[in-house]
Amino acid sequence: MTDRVVLAYSGGLDTSVAIGWIAERTGAEVIAVAVDVGQGGEDLEVIRQRALDCGAVEAYVADARDEFAQEYCMPALRANGLYLDRYPLVSALSRPVIVKHLVRAARQFDAQIVSHGCTGKGNDQVRFEVGITSLAPDLKCLAPVRDLALTRDKAIGYAEQHNLPIATTKRNPFSIDQNVWGRAIETGFLEDIWNGPTKDVYSYTDDPTFPPVADEVVLTFDQGIPVAIDGVAVTPLQAIQEMNRRAGAQGVGRIDIVEDRLVGIKSREIYEAPGAMALIAAHQELENVTVEREQARFKRGVEQRWAELVYDGMWFSPLKKSLDVFIDDTQRYVSGEVRMVLHGGRATVTGRRSDASLYDFNLATYDEGDSFDQSNAKGFIEIYGLTAKLSAARDAKFGNGVDLSAPANLQADG
Amino acid sequence: MTDRVVLAYSGGLDTSVAIGWIAERTGAEVIAVAVDVGQGGEDLEVIRQRALDCGAVEAYVADARDEFAQEYCMPALRANGLYLDRYPLVSALSRPVIVKHLVRAARQFDAQIVSHGCTGKGNDQVRFEVGITSLAPDLKCLAPVRDLALTRDKAIGYAEQHNLPIATTKRNPFSIDQNVWGRAIETGFLEDIWNGPTKDVYSYTDDPTFPPVADEVVLTFDQGIPVAIDGVAVTPLQAIQEMNRRAGAQGVGRIDIVEDRLVGIKSREIYEAPGAMALIAAHQELENVTVEREQARFKRGVEQRWAELVYDGMWFSPLKKSLDVFIDDTQRYVSGEVRMVLHGGRATVTGRRSDASLYDFNLATYDEGDSFDQSNAKGFIEIYGLTAKLSAARDAKFGNGVDLSAPANLQADG
Amino acid sequence: MTDRVVLAYSGGLDTSVAIGWIAERTGAEVIAVAVDVGQGGEDLEVIRQRALDCGAVEAYVADARDEFAQEYCMPALRANGLYLDRYPLVSALSRPVIVKHLVRAARQFDAQIVSHGCTGKGNDQVRFEVGITSLAPDLKCLAPVRDLALTRDKAIGYAEQHNLPIATTKRNPFSIDQNVWGRAIETGFLEDIWNGPTKDVYSYTDDPTFPPVADEVVLTFDQGIPVAIDGVAVTPLQAIQEMNRRAGAQGVGRIDIVEDRLVGIKSREIYEAPGAMALIAAHQELENVTVEREQARFKRGVEQRWAELVYDGMWFSPLKKSLDVFIDDTQRYVSGEVRMVLHGGRATVTGRRSDASLYDFNLATYDEGDSFDQSNAKGFIEIYGLTAKLSAARDAKFGNGVDLSAPANLQADG
Amino acid sequence: MTDRVVLAYSGGLDTSVAIGWIAERTGAEVIAVAVDVGQGGEDLEVIRQRALDCGAVEAYVADARDEFAQEYCMPALRANGLYLDRYPLVSALSRPVIVKHLVRAARQFDAQIVSHGCTGKGNDQVRFEVGITSLAPDLKCLAPVRDLALTRDKAIGYAEQHNLPIATTKRNPFSIDQNVWGRAIETGFLEDIWNGPTKDVYSYTDDPTFPPVADEVVLTFDQGIPVAIDGVAVTPLQAIQEMNRRAGAQGVGRIDIVEDRLVGIKSREIYEAPGAMALIAAHQELENVTVEREQARFKRGVEQRWAELVYDGMWFSPLKKSLDVFIDDTQRYVSGEVRMVLHGGRATVTGRRSDASLYDFNLATYDEGDSFDQSNAKGFIEIYGLTAKLSAARDAKFGNGVDLSAPANLQADG
Repeated sequence: MTDRVVLAYSGGLDTSVAIGWIAERTGAEVIAVAVDVGQGGEDLEVIRQRALDCGAVEAYVADARDEFAQEYCMPALRANGLYLDRYPLVSALSRPVIVKHLVRAARQFDAQIVSHGCTGKGNDQVRFEVGITSLAPDLKCLAPVRDLALTRDKAIGYAEQHNLPIATTKRNPFSIDQNVWGRAIETGFLEDIWNGPTKDVYSYTDDPTFPPVADEVVLTFDQGIPVAIDGVAVTPLQAIQEMNRRAGAQGVGRIDIVEDRLVGIKSREIYEAPGAMALIAAHQELENVTVEREQARFKRGVEQRWAELVYDGMWFSPLKKSLDVFIDDTQRYVSGEVRMVLHGGRATVTGRRSDASLYDFNLATYDEGDSFDQSNAKGFIEIYGLTAKLSAARDAKFGNGVDLSAPANLQADG
Repeated sequence: MTDRVVLAYSGGLDTSVAIGWIAERTGAEVIAVAVDVGQGGEDLEVIRQRALDCGAVEAYVADARDEFAQEYCMPALRANGLYLDRYPLVSALSRPVIVKHLVRAARQFDAQIVSHGCTGKGNDQVRFEVGITSLAPDLKCLAPVRDLALTRDKAIGYAEQHNLPIATTKRNPFSIDQNVWGRAIETGFLEDIWNGPTKDVYSYTDDPTFPPVADEVVLTFDQGIPVAIDGVAVTPLQAIQEMNRRAGAQGVGRIDIVEDRLVGIKSREIYEAPGAMALIAAHQELENVTVEREQARFKRGVEQRWAELVYDGMWFSPLKKSLDVFIDDTQRYVSGEVRMVLHGGRATVTGRRSDASLYDFNLATYDEGDSFDQSNAKGFIEIYGLTAKLSAARDAKFGNGVDLSAPANLQADG
Repeated sequence: MTDRVVLAYSGGLDTSVAIGWIAERTGAEVIAVAVDVGQGGEDLEVIRQRALDCGAVEAYVADARDEFAQEYCMPALRANGLYLDRYPLVSALSRPVIVKHLVRAARQFDAQIVSHGCTGKGNDQVRFEVGITSLAPDLKCLAPVRDLALTRDKAIGYAEQHNLPIATTKRNPFSIDQNVWGRAIETGFLEDIWNGPTKDVYSYTDDPTFPPVADEVVLTFDQGIPVAIDGVAVTPLQAIQEMNRRAGAQGVGRIDIVEDRLVGIKSREIYEAPGAMALIAAHQELENVTVEREQARFKRGVEQRWAELVYDGMWFSPLKKSLDVFIDDTQRYVSGEVRMVLHGGRATVTGRRSDASLYDFNLATYDEGDSFDQSNAKGFIEIYGLTAKLSAARDAKFGNGVDLSAPANLQADG
Repeated sequence: MTDRVVLAYSGGLDTSVAIGWIAERTGAEVIAVAVDVGQGGEDLEVIRQRALDCGAVEAYVADARDEFAQEYCMPALRANGLYLDRYPLVSALSRPVIVKHLVRAARQFDAQIVSHGCTGKGNDQVRFEVGITSLAPDLKCLAPVRDLALTRDKAIGYAEQHNLPIATTKRNPFSIDQNVWGRAIETGFLEDIWNGPTKDVYSYTDDPTFPPVADEVVLTFDQGIPVAIDGVAVTPLQAIQEMNRRAGAQGVGRIDIVEDRLVGIKSREIYEAPGAMALIAAHQELENVTVEREQARFKRGVEQRWAELVYDGMWFSPLKKSLDVFIDDTQRYVSGEVRMVLHGGRATVTGRRSDASLYDFNLATYDEGDSFDQSNAKGFIEIYGLTAKLSAARDAKFGNGVDLSAPANLQADG
């Protein structure tokens, strides 16, 4: 029986050529799978047909938009998932859902190999291959660019020679990956990290320099998930799309960063994620109101590790799952409303309210109605500071106390 | 011999009244100490004279601005010190330098008690008193508002009765604390956390809604410390002041947050810290370029604990000192230049360069000159993913594998 | 209506006197509640009758042994709960279950106050009072020793004067707290931390210096919980009791430590916890075999925080609950058998086996059958070490490389 | 010019054959370097001569024992370096010092390649190669076993064919690595993890089952480093050797563990480290007495990461260095004496004293002289427990409070 390879198909030049390239070099039949994670662009039926025209024995398209929003973006929102505190994990989140569909297709079509179009120096090859091995330890992986020497030039030559129904024009100046959670742009002149990004880099966001009038939005969350915008119920997918539109119009969510790749190099990346960044900002502030202090402090460390694991391709790993249950437990009361002003690149929270708030006006106020018993403070401070006091006494004993000698510019009175 | 009390003196109503209030209730002599941490406002010689007029037996003013910038703000910058990832620790940083001058004065004037104007429900009482006990375990602390029932109303009555040279007009709608690192505003209508801040809340920043033309700045760092702006050498204090001016003009650094106080309550705070926030953003990105990945990842946890300790009044604690030496060690190569555009509330890094950069163009580029050996990737991924693979095989063995069944909306081809 | 106070009653002098002492000083009726957490000693019916004889209006005894083993000791075992990596949280675990029964009694008998016999300088007062406030924020707490000046001398005088049915002999040289999870001994000559413990300190363990013949035991775990010993099914309570007996006979589980109390002081404690320590040793090794590496590494940090929270009286806190769900998730596969030799103070694991093991003989072996593909190693190492390599190159560039000059004692050949 | 290879030479079969094997396959000259890290065994001059007899163009022996003890073992002691809280990093510590001597030799003899005898599935290949690249990014690495297919059988054949002066008898049942810090044993029947270790596995320790009479020892530390034993001054090397002898005679420091290798597999290891384990136990307890609570709590996390990094071959990495400065800073006051009883496999601390102790008898005692002001406790508890109280009130509001219903076995009075 002929071997079968499931190929992650984007409709672009590289993966279109890969269909024939793999078939020629391995003798296998190729099944093309395109997964819609909200990347927009071409009609997916067109893409499906192109795969068949390029020689795929089967081709199908999976609409994974709701699944992606619900099962991948929402956990990221609950985790305030930001790699290096900045990058909302756009590509890192989409890889596991694509992997799931690839593996599903491999099972359905009895394929033994899964293939993807990544190079050998990025994060995505790891995310694909570790993801695949985490869902189906028996499957093999194949990366034609890395393993079968499918360079750009060879791809163009092959496409022209075989008359494939795909444009072979010059490479885009940038390498782009996009989905409903955001858009990633790299390479080209951005590889000189002193160069600033130019306007043509952006597509999800308008220029924040000249914004339209400010846009005020009220987001309603239920247990960390946005469920309504300005009072109108939304699905997770709709929440992201709507915020992409409105925050994008204000230029919110542009990111320019040098980041640490899993493969050990630093790379310069531009991201746009208007919806994601606005939603995370609102979610964080609702957590400030509803999550207990020590839980919130520990959650920060969990969030960092969560983001690292997802960035590093460990979506399906045991630790990632355990962090998820921790995070889910913290979200029980993250329900309520956040009012936010979107304007000129800023997504600014201006109000928050929640039935589950831990903010207690009567404890916080300095006006009448203050219910905080200040007489407790003296005893608290005494015991709270005791270890510092004992340490200080020891420092003094050993002559290691803080130097109190006068700085030169001290003005004493006469 | 008469007891002596050193009082942290601001020149305002509460501490002006406290001079006599303490003297009456304790029989002690009061020495007033005002510390200049760049809070601006009244001339400090005027303040000094007022203290004497209110009954202080001694009064002096310490110009701690350079000391504060160098020994308190710069460590905070190296630590990217942001409590809750948002608040640059404005008041938390100034308390220890003030404490140092209070203790110094207590030694100089042979006082046994140090006094401050804080209430019994905030963080600052803890910062003052734990700070004092950490520098001088033998000194006692006294908070007239908390310990001697000096309410606002009593203060007004006392000032009028004793004809003190201080205005007793209605309370400011807000409670404000400011220094060169930033400005904190709380209470009043802001205690309703659904209310947005009004324009009169702000003083260090102009409204970002209608900014002047964008302002491009190049910051030069040496080991994490800003040493030049646009090529002109600056001291730490000058760097902060200059960035306060330029970033403030663009409305950069406004923060509106519900935060967790050390005393267990949540409170709503508005901050303005244009210089601090711009400097931190630049510093973080220079670290992205110059700090090794694992060092950077661990440093995040150190930064969080550092900010918590400083917020919680533990500036002089043993752990804080040990975290400082860790952080200092990471800054060895954080030298270079960052270009930043200040505009409309945004401080956006657009370029970075450093002789000590770990960004390697030849490793990162996808163009000619690529020196990354992609043939290593396959072996790396295989071993890197091995524990996930073994776990997945076990999941499968026990029937706990990821569910691959088709979501409802999957479109297969015909 | 008369106020009612629920008192945590031990049957000893202090709490026996407290019944009348509280009644006299507060005018309230006292309900005595004794909770059996496996502390042994007097018959609890005798204790109940004594409470009534001392003036309690109600008295009851709760047999919480199974509840304590199951809901408090087992989570501690799953968490490998060791404060300072040494102390198995003996007293810290029992306080919350006692608190639960006190609050339950307060609700049943309509009491507004809960009282306990702790002093004002230990951890237990915090554990009681924070526990009570965490279950019933409306209840008040009362500590007669701390709040009503009930000193030891006064207690003896009161008991003699009122002819209470309780011995008023001299104080035990030690202060002791015990339950099925272990035994804590402090004070007396142990307060001199250079003094070694004497033989009379111990009760749960025999002297390990002269042990009986070695005792081999096989423990079966299901998801982190011991379910059989030497093939015989056991409940959690039985598992602890049986291991207390067998490990105790071998002198296993003696601990002598200076520890950090929550109230800021260091104190010297002796513990005996033969069953707990043996069970934790077995559980840790079964985790080594069945828990994935990164999950295990992160769990260590979770375990530390868990132990700190429980030690610090935060059993019912939100963070503790979230850590519990994390830990529970890690225990899914911690099932299998551990063989252990108990002898002369040592509990040594000598074998482990599990259907859910991640140890793979074929990957681990250096003999025939080795399935590990060593050809992957080169690529792995190259990429894994890349950030270190780039850092080293930078160190060299800046003259900061490791000094390779010859140590004095190097012997080169001629 | 002929290429030169520096080979880490042990004197055993594999590396003796490697000399010629490398020369034949690469055409390079081989320089053999043997590093004495206290592994004992053959005279090193004999080993040096054997290398020359086997064809090395140069051979030398470095006595790195003091260097190893001082610069590698002592930092590990300060870090309480235990991988998985159990393994004192025996082999992991020796690799970097060996690497340093290899690189030094490579520079001295102008070699371009460094070679070692490790296989492709262990940790040591990574420790060697990442270590080498961290000291000399320009050098290449060569592992004949992994890269030149030098199997055991081929080695025996080669040695016999070339009449090399080395025994080619059957393989030792175990694979052994040893140095002054300890001894590691693996493979053979130990690969069945249900098998217990047999007596012949051990060499550094006597059987703890039948120990000699107990041995009491007093260790003096200065800033975390042992400087005297029973009052006699010792160097770090002497301290380890002396404790190896005395603790080894009592069977202290045997470890049997399944551990997580860096290359993703679990392996079963037996270790003996009598001196290391006794010293760490003493050091930890001296830290309990002299290190402030929050510093100690954070240090635990640092220690874990330190041990992971060292285990994972990152001795020379930037993060490891930054952790070292943190650890060093915590050791300032870790000076004093620890009394310890060595007996029957146990190393039990029975006393500790230090001029720099933070243990304060007057604060800790329950007898006369108690200086702890218990009146502070009430206020402390009230504020300390406030966030838990507010959370509990919210739980109650939402019907999520702790279930207080009676367990079945509750006995109420009649």
